[in-house]
Amino acid sequence: MDSTNEIEAPQDMLLDLEITSFFDSAPPLKDGLDINRKITEFIERHSPLSGNLGERRIVCVTSGGTTVPLERRCVRFIDNFSSGHRGAASTEYFLKAGYGVIFLYRRGSCQPYCRSLPDDPFLECFEFTQESNVQVSESHFEVVKKAISNHHAAIAEGMLLKLPYTTIFEYLQILHKIAVPMRTLGGRGMFYLAAAVSDFYVPWNSMAEHKIQSASGPLDMRLVQVPKMLSVLRKIWAPLAFCISFKLETDSNILLQKADMALQKYKMHAVVANELSTRKDEVVVVTSNERISVKRDKAVAGDDVENHLIKLLVDRHLLYIKAGPDHVA
Amino acid sequence: MDSTNEIEAPQDMLLDLEITSFFDSAPPLKDGLDINRKITEFIERHSPLSGNLGERRIVCVTSGGTTVPLERRCVRFIDNFSSGHRGAASTEYFLKAGYGVIFLYRRGSCQPYCRSLPDDPFLECFEFTQESNVQVSESHFEVVKKAISNHHAAIAEGMLLKLPYTTIFEYLQILHKIAVPMRTLGGRGMFYLAAAVSDFYVPWNSMAEHKIQSASGPLDMRLVQVPKMLSVLRKIWAPLAFCISFKLETDSNILLQKADMALQKYKMHAVVANELSTRKDEVVVVTSNERISVKRDKAVAGDDVENHLIKLLVDRHLLYIKAGPDHVA
Repeated sequence: MDSTNEIEAPQDMLLDLEITSFFDSAPPLKDGLDINRKITEFIERHSPLSGNLGERRIVCVTSGGTTVPLERRCVRFIDNFSSGHRGAASTEYFLKAGYGVIFLYRRGSCQPYCRSLPDDPFLECFEFTQESNVQVSESHFEVVKKAISNHHAAIAEGMLLKLPYTTIFEYLQILHKIAVPMRTLGGRGMFYLAAAVSDFYVPWNSMAEHKIQSASGPLDMRLVQVPKMLSVLRKIWAPLAFCISFKLETDSNILLQKADMALQKYKMHAVVANELSTRKDEVVVVTSNERISVKRDKAVAGDDVENHLIKLLVDRHLLYIKAGPDHVA
Repeated sequence: MDSTNEIEAPQDMLLDLEITSFFDSAPPLKDGLDINRKITEFIERHSPLSGNLGERRIVCVTSGGTTVPLERRCVRFIDNFSSGHRGAASTEYFLKAGYGVIFLYRRGSCQPYCRSLPDDPFLECFEFTQESNVQVSESHFEVVKKAISNHHAAIAEGMLLKLPYTTIFEYLQILHKIAVPMRTLGGRGMFYLAAAVSDFYVPWNSMAEHKIQSASGPLDMRLVQVPKMLSVLRKIWAPLAFCISFKLETDSNILLQKADMALQKYKMHAVVANELSTRKDEVVVVTSNERISVKRDKAVAGDDVENHLIKLLVDRHLLYIKAGPDHVA
C-alpha cells in the first residue's frame, strides 16, 4: 500500500485484517474477566447515573514500555525503554485536576507519587529499630509519607485504577477492554497514550516454541510491524474520546515533522512531541493549527513539565466537551 | 573456525580478538573508579592480612538478565528474562554458610531476603496511620521485618556487596573488575554465574545512533555472538577460582547434553542444568563424573531448591580448596 492515491477503504480493510490477525494470534490474557469487571465498575462509578462521583471526566493514562517476546516460552524479548516517569507524574496532575484515572502501566515502572523515592525504596527508606520494629528512616520520612498517603488516598477514594501489563499483547488487549466501555462517557473520556509501544513484533504463530539456540554465526531476525492501533482506537473503539498521543525521537530534526504526520494519520486531537535528551524540560504540543512549547519552570523548585502540560490538556479537553462531539478539535 | 581439528592456539587468538573488540567498542562504565574501590575494599577486608574477617571464602553471585541495546541512544533493547529469584535466594544461603557475597544483579531484579514480598512492597506493605505516621500493615509485618533486618545486617556486617548492571556491556565490564582482584583469593574465590547473559549483541560501532524508524515493511536485524567470556574467566581472569555456571533450556531433551558441552568447553567445575518450567523444583548439577539431581523438599513448608543446591556446592568448594589449586575438581 505504498501509493497515497489509493482510496481509503482498501487501506482500512488491510488494517482490519492486520488487527484481526494480531488479536487472533495473541496469547489470551490471564485474569481477563477480572480486568473487565474492574474497568466496568470504575467507569460506572463515575457515570451520570451513579451517585456522588457522577459526571466526572476519566482519562486512561498509558505508561512504561511494552515488550515483544522472541520465543513462546519466553526467555528473550525486545523491550522499549521507558521509566514510566511521564505517565506517573501526569497521573498525579490529572488526579489533582479531579479526573478519574485508569493507569495502564508496565509492571515495575514508576508509580504515581513515587518519583522522588530512591531506586529501591523498600530497602533504602526503612530501618529496623532496637525495639524490633520497622520504621521509615528520618532522611526519607517526608517523601515516603507523601508517596504512601497520596497513593492510598487516590485508590481508597475510587479515583485511581491501576492495571499492569508487560507484553505488547497484554497492552493492546487491555487497552481495548478499557476503550469499549469508555464509549459511554462520550467526550468526557480521554486517552493520554504516553506508553512506549513496540513498532515491531514477532507474530505468536511464527514464534519459536523453544529458546533460540546460539549456534555458530550471527542471528538474523525478521520482525513485522505492529498494526497501527491508534487509528482503530479513534475510529472504532472510542470515536468520541479526546485523544492525545506521544512522539519520542532522538533526532530533533525529524521530531516535529513526525508529530505532524502522526496527528494527521491517526486523527489525534494533539500529539506531544518530545526528544529523548530534553524530555524532562520541554515538550511541544502539536495540534492541527498550533505548536505550543511547554517548559518546566526551572526557577521553581520541584516544578516539572507535566504540571504545565496537564493544565493545558485539561483546558483543551473542557473546550472539546463544550464544543460537542461533532466539532473537530 | 568450523573444523574441530584445528589446534587450540588459533581459536584462543580468535577469542582474544573477539574479546578485545567487544571491550574496545563498549561504552565506558559510569562510576568505574567507584566500583573498583568498592570491590577492592570488600575483597581486602576478607583477605588473610586483614583483621577479623580474614580467610573467608568469597563468592560472586550474578543474577537477573542482561540487556542488549539496539540503538546507541537507547530506546529499544533485547532483554533476557530472569526474575533474579535464583540469585537472590542463593545469596541468602551463601551468607548463611559464612561466605562474603558480591551480588552482581540486574537493576530492579529480585533482592536477597525479599522473595516473599508482594510485587510492589513499597506501596502494598505500608499504611498511613491517623497519627500521620507510616507503618507496616499487620498482614505483611513478619516478611517485611525479616527482609529489612536480614538485608541491612548483611550489608552492615560487610558480608554483602551489591553491584547493579543493566546492559551486557556493564555486566561483562563489572564481572572483569570483580574477577581480577579475586585472583588474590586463590581457591577461596568462587563464581556462581546465575545471570541470564545475552548470547547475541549489536556491536556498539555498528549500532544505529538514532531510534530505528518504523517505515513500511518488516525490520531485519543481524546480531553477532557475544564472545564466550566463561572461557576467559577460567583461563585468564581468575584461573584458580571455583566456577559454577548455569544452563537454562526450555526443551528438556537437549538440556543435559548442553550442560555437558558447557562443562567441557568452558572447563567449569560444575554446570547447574535447569529447565524453565521446573526450575523452582529441581536442578541437575553436572560435573565431570556426576549428574546429581537436587530437589526442593515439598514436604517442608518454605523449602526451596537453592537451600540444597548451595549446601552441595559449599561442600564441593571445601573439597576443592583442600585438594589444592592444581587438583582437577
